[in-house]
Amino acid sequence: MTLKKEDFPFSVQFDFERGEFSPKEKTATRRISDLGMIFHDKVAVELLIHQGDPLVYEIFYYGFKTSLSDMALGTTRIQPGKTGDEYYMTKGHFHEALDQPEIYFCIKGEGYLLMETLDGEFQAVKWKPGTITHIPPMWAHRVVNTSSSPLVFVASYHLAAGHSYEPIEEKGFLKRVIERNGKPQLVQNNQRF
Amino acid sequence: MTLKKEDFPFSVQFDFERGEFSPKEKTATRRISDLGMIFHDKVAVELLIHQGDPLVYEIFYYGFKTSLSDMALGTTRIQPGKTGDEYYMTKGHFHEALDQPEIYFCIKGEGYLLMETLDGEFQAVKWKPGTITHIPPMWAHRVVNTSSSPLVFVASYHLAAGHSYEPIEEKGFLKRVIERNGKPQLVQNNQRF
Repeated sequence: MTLKKEDFPFSVQFDFERGEFSPKEKTATRRISDLGMIFHDKVAVELLIHQGDPLVYEIFYYGFKTSLSDMALGTTRIQPGKTGDEYYMTKGHFHEALDQPEIYFCIKGEGYLLMETLDGEFQAVKWKPGTITHIPPMWAHRVVNTSSSPLVFVASYHLAAGHSYEPIEEKGFLKRVIERNGKPQLVQNNQRF
Repeated sequence: MTLKKEDFPFSVQFDFERGEFSPKEKTATRRISDLGMIFHDKVAVELLIHQGDPLVYEIFYYGFKTSLSDMALGTTRIQPGKTGDEYYMTKGHFHEALDQPEIYFCIKGEGYLLMETLDGEFQAVKWKPGTITHIPPMWAHRVVNTSSSPLVFVASYHLAAGHSYEPIEEKGFLKRVIERNGKPQLVQNNQRF
């Protein structure tokens, strides 16, 4: 087989302090105005948008598409903060391809990885630096930052996985992570019941 | 689809200081006596074996085989040290399945990732903490620790990749990493020419 440019090894340098790597192929930035639908307190959403529309999270990624394979690397950095009483979090997604898993590696910060299936199975995994979670196919996944500093995780997956936001965007996950008496607590998501 | 036990999420906790995670499914331990064939100085190999057969590296891994997928996670911890003038390193391998890539993430230590194809392409990537390398299909890979402390990296791949040691075990990679005047240097591997 004649090797093309994309069939050669490629390296990026991850900065553990900043929680990003370079070079990166793409960056996606999510502010409150991009995420209004995921937080339950719509008044708090409007207020935050008028107060400067703060950054909630960024995704940096690089796809390694070769002649024979399609691995990809992502890093997500979630800022600390809350919308009303609900901690900052990612939109969350299913994979379009139903046979595609993913590995998440928490580098910094603390929070929860929420996962659920279309059949109503739900899991919340408490995350701290060093927690590595295998997300099997068919499980939607969302990360919540409950710490007072950025939460950073590295993801390894395949470009073939794709992203499907609809089932989650509309009504959210089965549980929400909110602050009660200064501590994170998992509560039932009333939009689902 | 009815979920089986293996179709649920699973987490391990990685210890950044020690360079291992738990729980782990398997551990592989490699001492000098397991690796004699990979070092060029056979007298130094015999001497080290008689001096207690030191540990060179360990691999900790967990395979996430589900009904639909087969991702796997590995951590390798290479001790600092040399056999004669040649730095401690992994055996190195090709993947049996020729369409299987891998992602390596250097957590601690410094050294080199050596990669080559059966057609004679060769690359040596200088590694330090935070270097993440995508190893495309068809490239054999070996890691060399040139630092004075353990080198630790995390690997993400598929169980379907398999391991093929033969082409490398016999004659090694195109270059070796040896110490010259107190510094690591890449030199031609005479067994290959």
